Amino acid sequence: MSKGLPKRSENYSEWYNEIVKRADLAENSAVRGCMVIKPYGFAIWEKMQRALDDMFKATGHQNAYFPLFVPRSFLEKEEEHAEGFAKECAVVTHYRLKADGEGGLMVDPNAKLEEELIIRPTSETVIWNAYKNWIQSWRDLPILVNQWANVVRWEMRTRIFLRTAEFLWQEGHTAHATEKEAIAETEQMLDIYADFAENWMALPVIKGMKTPNERFAGAVETYCIEGLMQDGKALQCGTSHFLGQNFAKSFDVKFVNKENQLEYAWATSWGVSTRLMGALIMAHSDDNGLVLPPKLAPIQVVIVPIYKSPEDLAAISEKVEPIVKELKAAGISVKFDDSDNQRSGWKFAEYELRGVPIRLGLGMRDLENGTIEVARRDTLTKESMPIDGVAESVKILLDKIQASVYQRALEFRDTNTFPVDDWDEFCDRVEKGGFVLAHWDGTSETEEQIKEKTKATIRCIPLNAPVEDGKCILTGNASDKRVLFAKAY
Amino acid sequence: MSKGLPKRSENYSEWYNEIVKRADLAENSAVRGCMVIKPYGFAIWEKMQRALDDMFKATGHQNAYFPLFVPRSFLEKEEEHAEGFAKECAVVTHYRLKADGEGGLMVDPNAKLEEELIIRPTSETVIWNAYKNWIQSWRDLPILVNQWANVVRWEMRTRIFLRTAEFLWQEGHTAHATEKEAIAETEQMLDIYADFAENWMALPVIKGMKTPNERFAGAVETYCIEGLMQDGKALQCGTSHFLGQNFAKSFDVKFVNKENQLEYAWATSWGVSTRLMGALIMAHSDDNGLVLPPKLAPIQVVIVPIYKSPEDLAAISEKVEPIVKELKAAGISVKFDDSDNQRSGWKFAEYELRGVPIRLGLGMRDLENGTIEVARRDTLTKESMPIDGVAESVKILLDKIQASVYQRALEFRDTNTFPVDDWDEFCDRVEKGGFVLAHWDGTSETEEQIKEKTKATIRCIPLNAPVEDGKCILTGNASDKRVLFAKAY
Repeated sequence: MSKGLPKRSENYSEWYNEIVKRADLAENSAVRGCMVIKPYGFAIWEKMQRALDDMFKATGHQNAYFPLFVPRSFLEKEEEHAEGFAKECAVVTHYRLKADGEGGLMVDPNAKLEEELIIRPTSETVIWNAYKNWIQSWRDLPILVNQWANVVRWEMRTRIFLRTAEFLWQEGHTAHATEKEAIAETEQMLDIYADFAENWMALPVIKGMKTPNERFAGAVETYCIEGLMQDGKALQCGTSHFLGQNFAKSFDVKFVNKENQLEYAWATSWGVSTRLMGALIMAHSDDNGLVLPPKLAPIQVVIVPIYKSPEDLAAISEKVEPIVKELKAAGISVKFDDSDNQRSGWKFAEYELRGVPIRLGLGMRDLENGTIEVARRDTLTKESMPIDGVAESVKILLDKIQASVYQRALEFRDTNTFPVDDWDEFCDRVEKGGFVLAHWDGTSETEEQIKEKTKATIRCIPLNAPVEDGKCILTGNASDKRVLFAKAY
Repeated sequence: MSKGLPKRSENYSEWYNEIVKRADLAENSAVRGCMVIKPYGFAIWEKMQRALDDMFKATGHQNAYFPLFVPRSFLEKEEEHAEGFAKECAVVTHYRLKADGEGGLMVDPNAKLEEELIIRPTSETVIWNAYKNWIQSWRDLPILVNQWANVVRWEMRTRIFLRTAEFLWQEGHTAHATEKEAIAETEQMLDIYADFAENWMALPVIKGMKTPNERFAGAVETYCIEGLMQDGKALQCGTSHFLGQNFAKSFDVKFVNKENQLEYAWATSWGVSTRLMGALIMAHSDDNGLVLPPKLAPIQVVIVPIYKSPEDLAAISEKVEPIVKELKAAGISVKFDDSDNQRSGWKFAEYELRGVPIRLGLGMRDLENGTIEVARRDTLTKESMPIDGVAESVKILLDKIQASVYQRALEFRDTNTFPVDDWDEFCDRVEKGGFVLAHWDGTSETEEQIKEKTKATIRCIPLNAPVEDGKCILTGNASDKRVLFAKAY
């Protein structure tokens, strides 16, 4: 099956598309720019959702659901927000079809909406319109709400998981009594995203702030986490916005504070999306297919019997049964693939392609010797182990693989992060790929010129950037810290 | 808080609306017919989702995700389906807004879609278009897929949870190699829905088949479960459709069967929606507010301290702590409400309104006596118990309440189910409310006449209806079993 998978080094983009397809993760649908997330891909997304949802709830957030539709007039209320989203939105103008007299259907011109409805590209406007009625006093605050939803942005160039017209995400929308509390929330959620990326996705990320140019439309400050993919391009993996009082002012959300004065509420919003599926694939996978960190793998362990006769299979199955039981009892998802429509070699390749972290192979000679073959997907190494106690070894190995996948990604990131002080070197480096740490004079003009000349953007101003005297990579003007440049998805 | 809640007997409809509002379950949004599901309401829905999702997975189903948009031409492909849904769908015609020159936004006439997109009212067409590429051989079958999604039907008269323009649901879409297998799947999912209604929602339901008039548009057979609400109206709680080969034919989905012949695939679809929230409220709640079966209650036990001084509260808290721990360890969701901004009396009423199944009250006298007050939401009875071992008693009591809420609904249903053989009695009975079991001659004409004269519809032909000779309640023509009539939501 994995035969013919393009190599990363030869055609990274095609390699990515083929993994998405052959590992049965997703496919393009008949609707332009929209994807179908297939069961195996969705099972990974569900694991992500569960982990994130638990983290949100552990920090006091609750889920809710707000309408899919945004009235046009809502979008108009926050000027920057409108500018940011109006150009790429799906617009509902009618509420009925009728027979066209030729056996087909047509829009019924008599069913025109008085006010057009936009499919939410994000829900700040709809949610702040609701919050107006929820918030009267400081006692009603904070409101810590999240929603899991689909959103639509009519992108012209789409790429499965990475940029699609419709995508799935979560969007947190919180309201606070003070600026300080709202900023603390923004930072807390950024930390949660970084924690999730590192400890679940095994993906090291840089936490930072976006430049004004790259801010969310309507935000005072946008925080983000940035990951590095194997082709040297950056991928924004999550954003957390401090919205100040912008939306409260647009939707007139005031509350009586502790000093008995009317004040506008302070807001944050934050989100991660199915784009993370793209990050997961591109960060770890290899020329044999998907590599999944065990914590997000729908099947963590697969057991493949190697046999000729039904009697062999029966003998192997008997030996496998208690292993399956023990693994399941430990909360490990395990599949014993005793289907007889494919050879074991085909199965080996198939589970490799699908990124199952551990494969156990068991044949008649193993039974005689009391051994079992344990194969790691991440390193592609095999080892023969005593069959007794293998469940215990597998549990330990899963943790080891999770750590090792992270470690490999971290090493890749570190060896591909370059402090650069010379313009020619900068251009060369950016072209070759990787994170480039360089000085910048802090102006939008310079940022735009660099982007024009090199296609590199400022991914973020890292939160932990040390203060140092330097000169802007382009203009030579003074700068006091390095920012993170890269070409990006 | 609960003061002024309308009585069911006086204004059932207003009572329902007020419970939805005051128990903080949901509210109407600014978008016509669309609701906001608030955190407390959503927490109940999440519990429903989790239970159903577990049941689907236990029977071999996997989740996936398909696009929100249905191209107009897809809807046209299955004629009955198109007729059923074209009249009430939200239509996307453009993909961009632009500045209108007066500070607002307008639809950009240059951004008209070549083919309009419908917001999915249900996903048979989109999914069967995808299945075309998934299914080649009998080895690819069955496909057992479910999706959790939002759908839109542009209903003219909406009612929160019961009938909204946008609602949340799950829709299962399966493909099978044989008719027999597809029918078995349809029936299995109906059984799962009935199981969920009875064992989680504590709502007894009648399983049956819809008449041709009431079938899902495009189905060969529609199975349903019907519940009886406290006002005597029926509510359809879930449907499971045997679709035959209708969609396979419309989307040309053929497979090579075991006999090496090309055959169209057999299909089912099945769904339940946020409408179940309405059923849950209307089936159990009383004039004091919401009554929740413990298995679906976001907070199963609330502990309210009764105190005057901070010292009292500290003493009570110390006693409460191990109870909370023990309940949590048993997987019970418990809230200790030690907030000091409301009196205990206010809190009692508030948790009653929100349907928390068990309330524990603990004051200084209780501490002295070593007792605790245990109040049941379903019966509104209170009992003083020894504080030692109360966690154990609470665990047992939760099961008892779950059973008791079901029992009460079952008794209500049974005392309000009437076999009727006389037309005048039929009219009278239907008007007063309840399930009416009557003979019907099996024709659509008669069904429609009865509906016109009485507003009662045939809810279903019960699966377990005994065969007996009888005469149609309207025409007097021969009939061999009774069907279930009622006025319905």
